[in-house]
Amino acid sequence: MTTLKSLIVLAHPEKRSFNAQMASIAEQVLSRGEEDSARVLDLYGMGFDPVERGEHYANRKDLECFDAQAEQRHAADTDALPQDVRAHLEAVERADLLILQYPLWWYTPPAILKGWLDRVLVYGRAYTGQRRYDRGHFRGKRAMLSVTVGALEPTYRYNGRNGDIVHLLWPLNFTLYYVGFTVLEPFVAYGIEGGLKYSEQSEAVRRLRRCQADFERTLARLDQRPTIPFNGWDDWDEEGRLKPGVPGYSPFMRSDP
Amino acid sequence: MTTLKSLIVLAHPEKRSFNAQMASIAEQVLSRGEEDSARVLDLYGMGFDPVERGEHYANRKDLECFDAQAEQRHAADTDALPQDVRAHLEAVERADLLILQYPLWWYTPPAILKGWLDRVLVYGRAYTGQRRYDRGHFRGKRAMLSVTVGALEPTYRYNGRNGDIVHLLWPLNFTLYYVGFTVLEPFVAYGIEGGLKYSEQSEAVRRLRRCQADFERTLARLDQRPTIPFNGWDDWDEEGRLKPGVPGYSPFMRSDP
Repeated sequence: MTTLKSLIVLAHPEKRSFNAQMASIAEQVLSRGEEDSARVLDLYGMGFDPVERGEHYANRKDLECFDAQAEQRHAADTDALPQDVRAHLEAVERADLLILQYPLWWYTPPAILKGWLDRVLVYGRAYTGQRRYDRGHFRGKRAMLSVTVGALEPTYRYNGRNGDIVHLLWPLNFTLYYVGFTVLEPFVAYGIEGGLKYSEQSEAVRRLRRCQADFERTLARLDQRPTIPFNGWDDWDEEGRLKPGVPGYSPFMRSDP
Repeated sequence: MTTLKSLIVLAHPEKRSFNAQMASIAEQVLSRGEEDSARVLDLYGMGFDPVERGEHYANRKDLECFDAQAEQRHAADTDALPQDVRAHLEAVERADLLILQYPLWWYTPPAILKGWLDRVLVYGRAYTGQRRYDRGHFRGKRAMLSVTVGALEPTYRYNGRNGDIVHLLWPLNFTLYYVGFTVLEPFVAYGIEGGLKYSEQSEAVRRLRRCQADFERTLARLDQRPTIPFNGWDDWDEEGRLKPGVPGYSPFMRSDP
């Protein structure tokens, strides 16, 4: 049996952080003892530049006016992708499972991870007008968000002051689906604040260790984890609206009866 | 009568872009002929670094383990903020009105703008545990998102394939409220794709000019623009959940009866 390949993209500035530990746990559990079957892409560690701009493109389509989508497409078509983007894209294409490990900052991923999406999900390669949603480039692969938040779980429920976590994570889950991934329900670690001394035997540290143990169990049973349903091409009319009577899977959507 | 001061934060890599034109329009309309009363912060133009990390902090609280919130607070308390952050924060503090002008990339702001929030909304200065929401640091100031999207308007309705634009813009609108702003309903420009030759007399260019005229009219009448309601401190119980019977203003929220 071929060992599944896993890629864990980590977006945290501190090597000793809870997030970095989670990425390491994922690498260990998912590799199942097989060398090179799981790998961590540490965006901060590798100095990834998340800012999309003309200077990344050596072989511009239009030097007068920079249009990110057009230059991405041109670079993909002429095999002239920026080196770092090519390497990251190839790493994702080789993987069967993608985990994004990050802290929620202002309800969204840190800029370095947002920019990884901006630059690596290349138009013309990771998606096109036709090759998206249920016909997406990464079809057959699975992806899962593993997110840490500072506040406690009740604040992220349907009536919590931070807003429903399902809604908050929707844009990134939908982005993964957009490029073809089967998206597993996210793993969320609540009450994770920085500055903990993990060498101490405090209740806070014990709580975080229990959370990590829960994550290990989750990773060992990903085959049983529910996937998030999304609407596909056939569900929309020519205007891009849900056909009447079709259930809308996004927490935002509802169709006319 | 004192002229209100406006700050327009622009996040687009191309000076000739529709977004850059919109920022320029906002600067002209909002300055009302008074020099220096409106200003554009062109994040790409100034090479803003959106990646939060330890290297930005000259006077670290903890050199062994980088915790962004703790270092932000320490820097704020010791008057040792990174130079660029200090300058941007002061610009926001001087303004009465903040406009964020950007294209939606993967349903969220470009990384350079996400990182502006990560780095400039400093813990200990832009917010604290007590000084947030309806007691936030920027209370009395107004903010508005001005966003461009590539697809047409129907796809961003409650049953559109891209998802309800109100829900998609919620995290950033809520972030602005979190630090105290009164948030005006966003201005959204639909069907904005790159690469248009503005010197040409095409139907697409005419449509974009109508959109810009609409934006001018909007900017001239901001006093009449509806504000987005949010829940405040008094609406939540000790667990951070909406008290029963209290209306939840976020599109995500609903309270128990």
